[in-house]
Amino acid sequence: MTNQRRPLAQISRLARRAGGTTAANRMVPEETPVAFSYAGTTHAVMMASPADFEDFALGFSLTEGIIADPAEIEAIEVEDLGAGIDIQIKLKDKANTRFEARRRRLAGPVGCGLCGIESIEEAMRTVDAVGSSKLTLGAEDVTRSVRLLSKQQPLHIETGAVHAAGFYVPGKGIVMAREDVGRHNALDKLAGALAKASIGGATGAVVVTSRVSVEMVQKTAAIGAPIIMAVSAPTALAIRTAEAAGMTLVALVRGDDFDIFTHPERVACGVAKHVA
Amino acid sequence: MTNQRRPLAQISRLARRAGGTTAANRMVPEETPVAFSYAGTTHAVMMASPADFEDFALGFSLTEGIIADPAEIEAIEVEDLGAGIDIQIKLKDKANTRFEARRRRLAGPVGCGLCGIESIEEAMRTVDAVGSSKLTLGAEDVTRSVRLLSKQQPLHIETGAVHAAGFYVPGKGIVMAREDVGRHNALDKLAGALAKASIGGATGAVVVTSRVSVEMVQKTAAIGAPIIMAVSAPTALAIRTAEAAGMTLVALVRGDDFDIFTHPERVACGVAKHVA
Repeated sequence: MTNQRRPLAQISRLARRAGGTTAANRMVPEETPVAFSYAGTTHAVMMASPADFEDFALGFSLTEGIIADPAEIEAIEVEDLGAGIDIQIKLKDKANTRFEARRRRLAGPVGCGLCGIESIEEAMRTVDAVGSSKLTLGAEDVTRSVRLLSKQQPLHIETGAVHAAGFYVPGKGIVMAREDVGRHNALDKLAGALAKASIGGATGAVVVTSRVSVEMVQKTAAIGAPIIMAVSAPTALAIRTAEAAGMTLVALVRGDDFDIFTHPERVACGVAKHVA
Repeated sequence: MTNQRRPLAQISRLARRAGGTTAANRMVPEETPVAFSYAGTTHAVMMASPADFEDFALGFSLTEGIIADPAEIEAIEVEDLGAGIDIQIKLKDKANTRFEARRRRLAGPVGCGLCGIESIEEAMRTVDAVGSSKLTLGAEDVTRSVRLLSKQQPLHIETGAVHAAGFYVPGKGIVMAREDVGRHNALDKLAGALAKASIGGATGAVVVTSRVSVEMVQKTAAIGAPIIMAVSAPTALAIRTAEAAGMTLVALVRGDDFDIFTHPERVACGVAKHVA
């Protein structure tokens, strides 16, 4: 494995400020195609921050349901091809057989695609219920988690342009955090880092700086975390999916204010008086 | 075609404000899997706002290089499957033959994937140069375009959580705009709407509310627009790609301030004095 890459670059640009124009430097995030291959064939290509490749491969394999346990991975080989990063993930026998059966099922007789119905069902896959976790938070945990995550975003502090995902444990703070230009990638990298450190997903809450689309809820359920908290807004589909999975979805965390969209019983301030 | 869907929904949530909690309604954007099929096989599935499906199909086909001209499409059929939207795009003879040859080339002997090198090359495809366009803007066009686009974002005004892409023509303002939960989708829908209205991409500038990743530059080049302007920041790869394509990339447009990252000769204020 060779990785001399940095996840950010200094560039020169013209800055228009208060009616005047000057040339000055600025830090911007890098972005690189990362290809994931299983059983020798590429499964997905993502534009991602060139960092934490093994966390990314392990986390993606887990949150996309390709493996159920990190022990199912035989080896992760990362190769820098210049134009991008090629990651070959070797699965152990049983997982490999399962993956190849899934691929044969998905690759129809006419080529490499699915029919529309199968593709949509794949995108809308059922998520694991997280309802059994007894984790609860106070209102101050919610606002504190976002404040603490903001201190573990070195790439964002330099560039102002990348997402982060962190894992918050009451009494311990943010115990793990990862950054990426893509919000899904940041969450996959977090999932991989948690698995590598043997931190159980049911023991804490996922905190993200981004919006909450349905994939963020699906990936949080795969991690096993019963709570997702986000700086930005959720979609209606993300709300329905979290509701069905028994997951608490808190979003629009801004300063001391936030909104609880599903399963408020896990947040101590969640008992509301109805406004007449 | 049946489409009774709305791109947003009213939901109830608990709002934590100034230390108190109340139940109240809020509008959130919908999000739906949309599958694009060509020659009877699904090519891609995107999570998107359920609106403007025909613009989306036409624009995606153009910006992903599946067709070179709207006339190559025989028919676009949109079917609501409940769990998602299935869009069947029927290509005319020559385009269909070209698409099937490309699919055979990309589907290797072992299944439905590419090898890592091919996948990365596909992601990093060369973009068309846009250097021949003579379009130029003044500083006031840059700031005005973002201000005008913000008035053509009805879904964002209600939900505060969707992206927009608009087409700005000097002297005319924003002549076309589309919104979506996904920034790529908003740009694809704009591309389709422009093509349907026979508005040439070289006559104006693309304006987006989002960050500028390399795909946004690739799609803007496919539209043929020589300028992209964005509210948020670009990646280093987007900057390199715009530079190579002869495209002017303006970003971080906030109030009267903005940054010019590539080809400043198209912006009247672009001649800078260097700060010592």
